Amino acid sequence: MYDFGLVGLGVMGQNFILNVADNGFSAYGYDLDEEKVEALKTLGGDLDKVSASSNIKTFVKNLKQPRKIMLLVPAGKIVDAVIESLLPHIDKGDIIIDGGNSFFTDTDRREAQLQERAINFFGAGVSGGAKGARKGPSIMPGGSKSAYEHIKPIFEAVSAKYNGEPCVAYLGPKSAGNYVKMVHNGIEYGLMQLTSEIYDVLKRGGDYTNDELHSTFAKWNSGRLQSFLVQITSEIFEQEDDLVKGRLVDQILDKAKQKGTGKWTSQNAMDLGIPVPSIDVAVSMRELSALKEERVKADALYDRPSVAHMDKEKLEELTEKALFFSFIITYSQGLHQLADASKEYGYDLDIAIIAKIWRAGCIIRAGLLADITEAFKAEPTLPNLLLSPNFVSKIKETVGAARELVAFGAQNGIPLPGLSNSLTYFDAYTSSKLPLNLIQAQRDYFGSHTYERLDREGIFHTEWED
Amino acid sequence: MYDFGLVGLGVMGQNFILNVADNGFSAYGYDLDEEKVEALKTLGGDLDKVSASSNIKTFVKNLKQPRKIMLLVPAGKIVDAVIESLLPHIDKGDIIIDGGNSFFTDTDRREAQLQERAINFFGAGVSGGAKGARKGPSIMPGGSKSAYEHIKPIFEAVSAKYNGEPCVAYLGPKSAGNYVKMVHNGIEYGLMQLTSEIYDVLKRGGDYTNDELHSTFAKWNSGRLQSFLVQITSEIFEQEDDLVKGRLVDQILDKAKQKGTGKWTSQNAMDLGIPVPSIDVAVSMRELSALKEERVKADALYDRPSVAHMDKEKLEELTEKALFFSFIITYSQGLHQLADASKEYGYDLDIAIIAKIWRAGCIIRAGLLADITEAFKAEPTLPNLLLSPNFVSKIKETVGAARELVAFGAQNGIPLPGLSNSLTYFDAYTSSKLPLNLIQAQRDYFGSHTYERLDREGIFHTEWED
Repeated sequence: MYDFGLVGLGVMGQNFILNVADNGFSAYGYDLDEEKVEALKTLGGDLDKVSASSNIKTFVKNLKQPRKIMLLVPAGKIVDAVIESLLPHIDKGDIIIDGGNSFFTDTDRREAQLQERAINFFGAGVSGGAKGARKGPSIMPGGSKSAYEHIKPIFEAVSAKYNGEPCVAYLGPKSAGNYVKMVHNGIEYGLMQLTSEIYDVLKRGGDYTNDELHSTFAKWNSGRLQSFLVQITSEIFEQEDDLVKGRLVDQILDKAKQKGTGKWTSQNAMDLGIPVPSIDVAVSMRELSALKEERVKADALYDRPSVAHMDKEKLEELTEKALFFSFIITYSQGLHQLADASKEYGYDLDIAIIAKIWRAGCIIRAGLLADITEAFKAEPTLPNLLLSPNFVSKIKETVGAARELVAFGAQNGIPLPGLSNSLTYFDAYTSSKLPLNLIQAQRDYFGSHTYERLDREGIFHTEWED
Repeated sequence: MYDFGLVGLGVMGQNFILNVADNGFSAYGYDLDEEKVEALKTLGGDLDKVSASSNIKTFVKNLKQPRKIMLLVPAGKIVDAVIESLLPHIDKGDIIIDGGNSFFTDTDRREAQLQERAINFFGAGVSGGAKGARKGPSIMPGGSKSAYEHIKPIFEAVSAKYNGEPCVAYLGPKSAGNYVKMVHNGIEYGLMQLTSEIYDVLKRGGDYTNDELHSTFAKWNSGRLQSFLVQITSEIFEQEDDLVKGRLVDQILDKAKQKGTGKWTSQNAMDLGIPVPSIDVAVSMRELSALKEERVKADALYDRPSVAHMDKEKLEELTEKALFFSFIITYSQGLHQLADASKEYGYDLDIAIIAKIWRAGCIIRAGLLADITEAFKAEPTLPNLLLSPNFVSKIKETVGAARELVAFGAQNGIPLPGLSNSLTYFDAYTSSKLPLNLIQAQRDYFGSHTYERLDREGIFHTEWED
């Protein structure tokens, strides 16, 4: 009998099982693809620790009760199909864990349906890619708190560790885990967009070679910008191309794809009424990048300002500061969304715990997250990171560079939408007075939508004179 | 027997009926509220031309067949309830027209359900506010093309006119009309945000008084910026406050509300994969404006750069050009979305006709729309306005000012998110090469998501060296 079951033996599933086995638990896999089943058995080595089957009955029969069955299959109808196929064979009290990027309302629906049959259901986002699954991912589980005790020992064993602390924790009921993973990915979109803008401005504003880009990002990665994305960016610039002479990055098509989690983050933030413009624009830039043919046509019609070159030392200082500034702003927006979703959906999230389990294993892991953890430990109901005293100083030191860099991009025709949305968000969020009184006046003028006043309570409408 | 029936005798409904009667058709209203029924009868004057009832049977019995029944009630469940209440009394071939801002998928559902009962259903967005409903709105109907012939004479009579041409046309099947109205409102959000930013920069960067703001917007309204929103903005700055000495605009609370159509535009653009960042950020700025308490707290924690004052003449030139530039970009984004939605949802939209019926009556009416109409007449499948030769020159003349103004805002702490998103959208859309090759490299590095290449066809994956 095996401790842990896993459905879906793709790279992620295979790696997750091997990780479980490395950490002292036995694991059994299930996939309809006989080849994947055999491959896992071979890779696992010891059949007492790792085995697999393409027969669902055999799979279920081999698991210790309460069964802990994790699904690593594509989000969508496949998840429902797998659950349906498991139901005739499993028992009350068994636990199904969806490890994919399911949309959070799907998780709520599945959890409610399974609860009726006394089956525990978890949505548990897993971040870290294939390597993370093998060596230690960050895991974000949500579901029944009491059932979590059964999976906790295994998840804590397989997860990444930060100073010995596991990068997994029970996050909340229902779809809390999927929701947190969705926003994690939204932040990821934002940070990736920002690194691509810094790459652009270094290349076009400072003629940086790939070697210089490599060493600049590598240097940053040993400072306050330390993060997985900055680290792999530095490595990407070093990667030689296998097919033609030169670096691979220069041959990669500039059309960015997406799988939907960033888009969901933006769309749901709008439903909540929480502004996340640094994430929104990361989504729209991926869309814009896909319109390559239109871009090529448009490029031929317009002139571009010739780029004024900046002193390298100055450019490097500005970009480091602006990137640090806009990373903070992007985390601020995402965490703001989580704090609001927690109330709206009853997740009762502890943001400090979330920041804590993001410190290692996941794609957005960064040195900054240790400070974020501390900020929310000190003040658990902090509405926005920008209100934390420790972050005020970080922002004050870097915002000037963000101003200069955004102005440089605007004047020189280098699009820096993530940086400028981070800056305008900051400038608006820290403005006690915004010019949106005009918008309320317009709305009342043409639609009688009413307005409030600064000097007294109440709802007002004016018959505007034209 | 009456030519036209209308359900919902609020201000919009009342005004619409009086407009119908002014234009030679008789109209009958229905509302459960007896007071509204009586008010309309009194206002209408001649009971042979305008009457009303709070009894649904009486209402339906008084309409000529095929009955033309328009609903001007709040979007949502009320629309379904009104339809349900009408069904027992109406006949095959009758026509129900939803004139509200219903979400387009709701319209599709209702249209399909009513088609089964041989009732024709139209989603017909109406823009122009209460005054427009009375004096001539822009109407955007979608539904059955053959049934449109029955409502066409009335709609053409009551709609606004531009050089004698009615601001209404059959737009397409199913929810085409609601969809077009939704994007109309998304563009409206964008334009309103832009005018509020220009107000801010004139006030803070040039110490403009309300009188100067009034005359500047009034002057602009007689030039290429001529538009309803610029016109009412100029009038707003003149409006005296009834309650305290001074201008009303200075007493209006800077929290902007929203009813959802702008949000829907952004959310659906993301589903389509069409970038509309000038609209997205208009939505998020309304959200941000609502967080007034947080803003006040944040303001106290941070310094703001002291604003460098600009020569008034120069500032006025820059703001006029930047506003014209960003208006064009906002229309470009919205029309891009319409072109794509037309394919995705089978609307078969004619963008030239849409621009044409927006030239008068609606909130986004503007001199610019005559040029936009011509651009799409000349090239009906134009993917984006920025590719139209006539617009290339307009953009080239104004983009420099947008660059300067965005840089000014960034350096001086004046948030100009709509302007900067318009500029970065332009700079990215006109870039044959974007730095998103890095994002594809990152995605392949951590998630094996593969990439394409510039130099050859195919899908590639690399085992990146760390």
